[in-house]
Amino acid sequence: MNKLKVAILGYGNLGKGVECAVSESSDMELTALFTRRAPESIKTQSGVPVYHIDEAVKMKDEIDVLILCGGSANDLPEQTPYFAEYFNVIDSFDTHANIPQHFENVDKKSRTGKRVSVISVGWDPGMFSLNRLYGEAILPSGASYTFWGKGVSQGHSDAIRRIDGVLDARQYTIPVESALESVRRGENPDLSTREKHTRECFVVAEEGADLARIENEIKTMPNYFADYDTTVHFISQEELLRDHAGIPHGGKVFRSGKTNGGKNSHVIEYSLKLDSNPEFTASVLVAYARAAARLCNEGSFGAKTVLDIPPAYLHPEDAATLRQKLL
Amino acid sequence: MNKLKVAILGYGNLGKGVECAVSESSDMELTALFTRRAPESIKTQSGVPVYHIDEAVKMKDEIDVLILCGGSANDLPEQTPYFAEYFNVIDSFDTHANIPQHFENVDKKSRTGKRVSVISVGWDPGMFSLNRLYGEAILPSGASYTFWGKGVSQGHSDAIRRIDGVLDARQYTIPVESALESVRRGENPDLSTREKHTRECFVVAEEGADLARIENEIKTMPNYFADYDTTVHFISQEELLRDHAGIPHGGKVFRSGKTNGGKNSHVIEYSLKLDSNPEFTASVLVAYARAAARLCNEGSFGAKTVLDIPPAYLHPEDAATLRQKLL
Repeated sequence: MNKLKVAILGYGNLGKGVECAVSESSDMELTALFTRRAPESIKTQSGVPVYHIDEAVKMKDEIDVLILCGGSANDLPEQTPYFAEYFNVIDSFDTHANIPQHFENVDKKSRTGKRVSVISVGWDPGMFSLNRLYGEAILPSGASYTFWGKGVSQGHSDAIRRIDGVLDARQYTIPVESALESVRRGENPDLSTREKHTRECFVVAEEGADLARIENEIKTMPNYFADYDTTVHFISQEELLRDHAGIPHGGKVFRSGKTNGGKNSHVIEYSLKLDSNPEFTASVLVAYARAAARLCNEGSFGAKTVLDIPPAYLHPEDAATLRQKLL
Repeated sequence: MNKLKVAILGYGNLGKGVECAVSESSDMELTALFTRRAPESIKTQSGVPVYHIDEAVKMKDEIDVLILCGGSANDLPEQTPYFAEYFNVIDSFDTHANIPQHFENVDKKSRTGKRVSVISVGWDPGMFSLNRLYGEAILPSGASYTFWGKGVSQGHSDAIRRIDGVLDARQYTIPVESALESVRRGENPDLSTREKHTRECFVVAEEGADLARIENEIKTMPNYFADYDTTVHFISQEELLRDHAGIPHGGKVFRSGKTNGGKNSHVIEYSLKLDSNPEFTASVLVAYARAAARLCNEGSFGAKTVLDIPPAYLHPEDAATLRQKLL
């Protein structure tokens, strides 16, 4: 069997996660890593050849799928449409409000190039979206709930770091246990933002900084913290590095619905507990890379999302084997 | 919008569940109920017209999807291939070892008739199979676990009823909490049959029956009980009807896997808690009826399983709306 030739663009946490995930997939091989930095400055774990991003397009015939590992704010809105014309591409674009526009931009280029792109892959958007869809389709009379955490929110950690007098910070999003239990009991509660999640912050302050002022600025910060019950702990840089170095995350999607005119309740719960958010996200991207290559081989060109792709396309084994083993 | 015309074959618990589920789906209408019994003997909840099974084929042009609600032992091996030539059909065939042969039989007839069949739909096989697939594809280095219950096992209840001196019985399959916790912690335990589930039996005995002998016959019954820790309670018929009339079920599928050469653990848990096993199963069948009709309209004929079907095909809304709402 010819192995699927995978390339990575961008070597941050997500790109490193893709490098690991490809090495766990016996039907794939890593062909190239592309970067905007000086290639010789990058030392990879796998020893994959590193090229400057400007070299990518001329290597298009040597690569089956290009996995884009940049950020949603600045990188992917440009990169995904651009590369979608030359490669089958996968991205993890997660700026929710802009997904429809991003889809249109990418779809057009993929069709021009007769390629397949899969956008917004990961766990949310991604596996959580899938579970919202299956839940709604199966139990139309019901309510859906998404909880995040316990896990590190990069955006909230960054917001704390921008406060004057803060050297470093780590913010955990934590679902409220009593809210989870109410949903699990099928009570279909109406939950406010404050009733769903709490926020816990570990902050390293400059020596002599006004801790009360920092704590108040965090707790009253609009959008990020003001609508939540927030706890702030001041710790040393050493403690932060020792106890909060990981990037765990996770969460739960529930569908709670009724049948027989409201007589019977059913609760579907999909839950993720992840030691490493970027490594799990990368594992999802790599599974969808397999699907993108298959769809391209079938001539099913254009942009797709996880909602469009037959589940069996993610798995290395053939349909008959999957029926025999998994049904 | 034209509503999807759905018909049901068989009016047991599953057929009644499908009747309910269609009524919850605003894009569908129930067109006919077919039965092997005398049609005039059947009183439906919805007032749908009832016909003898022999009338079905001549009504093929009035029906978009026929949902087969018979049993896997005797009904579906005959009925699904037969009707697959004339209708888009959905079944819940769950005799695991025979699924590949059943698929082949149904596929041939569906292709002859230019129709779509979806076999082995429900929650296990069905939603659990899907979650095994997604889990394996995303975390190839790992282990999968399926637990059932707490819920009523019809087969085990029937087995107890066949014992001499037993008037009625209800058997609950219960997952072992410590096993669930070990899997949730990412420990990837090797679990024996006995370590995964216990069995609890509520038995109504004939007056004067030898209860010790009945209890011993249950606990030592090969395949059904001998490999499990089994508890037997003798109760009255009134208690059985009062406390054990429902048919709840559920279960959990786990995928526990590692990334980064074993450094990080991830646990995916998919859990169902169902007040009514047949009504939930029926709700899944009805969602896949929608998909079958769409696939047929596209000319994608033949047999499919849940593993083959793009998730978006289950949902009444169009792809752009789903991207906007669910991603």
